[in-house]
Amino acid sequence: MALSVVRWGGPAALSLRGKGRALSRATAPFRPGRVAVLSKTTRFEFEQERGRAEGERRRELRERLATKGSSYNGLLERHTVHSANVQHVVDTLHKEGIEVRLVKRRDYTEEIVQWADAIVSAGGDGTMLLSASKVFGQIKPVIGVNTDPERSQGHLCLPVRYTHCFSEALQKLRQGEFSWQWRQRIRICLEGAGINPTPVDLHEQQLSLEQHLTAHRDVAQPASCDVVNSDPQLLSVRALNEVFVGESLSSRASYYEISIDDGPWEKHKNSGLNMCTGTGSKAWSYNINKLAYQEVEDLLSIAKEKSRVDLPINQELVEQVTDHYNQSLIFCPEDPKIFFSIREPIVNRVFTSSQHRGFTNKMSVRSRCWDACMVVDGGTSFEFNDGAIATLTVNEEDALCTVVLEE
Amino acid sequence: MALSVVRWGGPAALSLRGKGRALSRATAPFRPGRVAVLSKTTRFEFEQERGRAEGERRRELRERLATKGSSYNGLLERHTVHSANVQHVVDTLHKEGIEVRLVKRRDYTEEIVQWADAIVSAGGDGTMLLSASKVFGQIKPVIGVNTDPERSQGHLCLPVRYTHCFSEALQKLRQGEFSWQWRQRIRICLEGAGINPTPVDLHEQQLSLEQHLTAHRDVAQPASCDVVNSDPQLLSVRALNEVFVGESLSSRASYYEISIDDGPWEKHKNSGLNMCTGTGSKAWSYNINKLAYQEVEDLLSIAKEKSRVDLPINQELVEQVTDHYNQSLIFCPEDPKIFFSIREPIVNRVFTSSQHRGFTNKMSVRSRCWDACMVVDGGTSFEFNDGAIATLTVNEEDALCTVVLEE
Repeated sequence: MALSVVRWGGPAALSLRGKGRALSRATAPFRPGRVAVLSKTTRFEFEQERGRAEGERRRELRERLATKGSSYNGLLERHTVHSANVQHVVDTLHKEGIEVRLVKRRDYTEEIVQWADAIVSAGGDGTMLLSASKVFGQIKPVIGVNTDPERSQGHLCLPVRYTHCFSEALQKLRQGEFSWQWRQRIRICLEGAGINPTPVDLHEQQLSLEQHLTAHRDVAQPASCDVVNSDPQLLSVRALNEVFVGESLSSRASYYEISIDDGPWEKHKNSGLNMCTGTGSKAWSYNINKLAYQEVEDLLSIAKEKSRVDLPINQELVEQVTDHYNQSLIFCPEDPKIFFSIREPIVNRVFTSSQHRGFTNKMSVRSRCWDACMVVDGGTSFEFNDGAIATLTVNEEDALCTVVLEE
Repeated sequence: MALSVVRWGGPAALSLRGKGRALSRATAPFRPGRVAVLSKTTRFEFEQERGRAEGERRRELRERLATKGSSYNGLLERHTVHSANVQHVVDTLHKEGIEVRLVKRRDYTEEIVQWADAIVSAGGDGTMLLSASKVFGQIKPVIGVNTDPERSQGHLCLPVRYTHCFSEALQKLRQGEFSWQWRQRIRICLEGAGINPTPVDLHEQQLSLEQHLTAHRDVAQPASCDVVNSDPQLLSVRALNEVFVGESLSSRASYYEISIDDGPWEKHKNSGLNMCTGTGSKAWSYNINKLAYQEVEDLLSIAKEKSRVDLPINQELVEQVTDHYNQSLIFCPEDPKIFFSIREPIVNRVFTSSQHRGFTNKMSVRSRCWDACMVVDGGTSFEFNDGAIATLTVNEEDALCTVVLEE
């Protein structure tokens, strides 16, 4: 696939390249004047704040953490590492004469996004998803810096080495030594009985089940008994990683009907449905579908026995086959497609599952669930109960602008 | 494995046979004098009751169901089928001069279990799990009758043909033409910080998230801030299928440490942990681990390419290999072992997963979860938050007594 749409309307118009792999040294320079830095809330800050609300002293916090098997000093150390890296980013930006606003989750508003020429996400992948969640319908690069590479995943972030020399990253942007990457996102349309397009924000919130519920209730529409079929409503979020649909309670089976590319409705019972982008194909979707060496070895041994062909099963072959298979589950973030996975499908006389995963351009899901949710990027949750219908598509105008730097 | 323990202390002592496969025609007759029949609540009854609470009329119920895409007549039909089959069982028992108590979920008490010589579960597998949940520490056969074989799964029930001729089943019991099957169950010991051994009952309740939460709060121990390490407490349930441990919210990753057979503690991040019995190896555990034809075909094609061996990949081979592999995931209900599966493990620099499934005699799990639960047989839920430790073992005295009849 080769995207060649010019999406940057500014003075330095950009020619986009597909796959984001062939790094272009000829990209027009990117010189942001204003940058918003979104810093993650560390576990240390979270626990501290929680304790503060209950008038807890440091010694008590230390004891509370110890009882749970966590170490105050350990958490403080990670917090210090993160904070130093954030400071390094902010200092570097200042030194280059860039206006900076350093914000936490609660202050990361649409106004901040409007103000900034670019967003720097200072945290891990979770912070990157949070950063992206407020950026859409506009060209505004989101750049991820992994602020604790030893402990935190940063698939969506710049290579780890730029964490400690952010000035080099900035230099490359200003000299055009980078390429743009347009990560496709999924948009969702809701219709049907009793839908509620108001989201509950889960990002970094570490909500308890109770808070989650209260939040859902707070945004509930006034008359929940007025079950009427509503007109389709386009939700105000775009999924960078994935959309999950299923019963809210993890131990409960989910029941729904799906239609793939406007095909017939099929009944399914399972542990929920994951619908991901190319970006998300490395995340939850990958963990759903990947195979382990152990499984592949068992399978090849059975194949050898059944086929009576002398397959040379050794560690090398097992690893090669497994790695190749797992790699095939990943696709390009710029591909405008959806990959769906039906988790742990229940197959019996009542429920059949002709296809439990695959690519699609349009996926419709009709909930038959009892108390279900639709969760976007693990951070934004919508009610999705019996009678509600969600339709997922990829529109190129929703793509998120990110940058690719050499390793 | 050959169990030869005499577990039936009554006048007709029984010699148990392993695997329950070789049907014994020489089993001592079983002639219960009192039978409790536990009948499931059908979806029709459930919706009707729900509507009744809100003063709903039949026409309104009809409309409410239609809005959600469900049919009043369809649900009524399934309800009628179920009711007729329950009536058949009750009539048959009466005809044989057996004292019968027909109960629903809410009237299924320990007193009823004490009173009865045997329990007949009239429903599907869910009703069977509910029936079994109150029977332990005593020899009391639980016999499952699938009351809607067309729509409901009955792995744990008698073969479907006995649904319509229950008298024949009874005859065989009275003539000793059956074998006993002792299905092993898992017991759980809880210790550590802030544990709460009081369960929340989810069986057939179709609790909403709100009710679930309220229930958890109602049984909460008085001082939740008193986080102290408690002595190990043996829970009052036994798992016939499985124990699930993970975050309550299905979209959230679970984080915990496990120790297998007293081995070292290992950190894991994933979608929760399933620990099952042989009985449960056909249930959720099977759906977690089974492979689809599509996956096996893809994998064999890669193996063919990588090994350069001419593997004859065709539909027959793919099906043979897949079926053999999936069959290997199932083990005998009488085996006193636990099979654990780590769902969708997250493997990276921070979390490694040396083994993501396998057999064990003793499994310990230490929660690092935020708002987690431990759910037994999908029907009984316990809080399982950061600092709590669960230890699972199989003790033969916990086995559930069931009967096996010829197909």
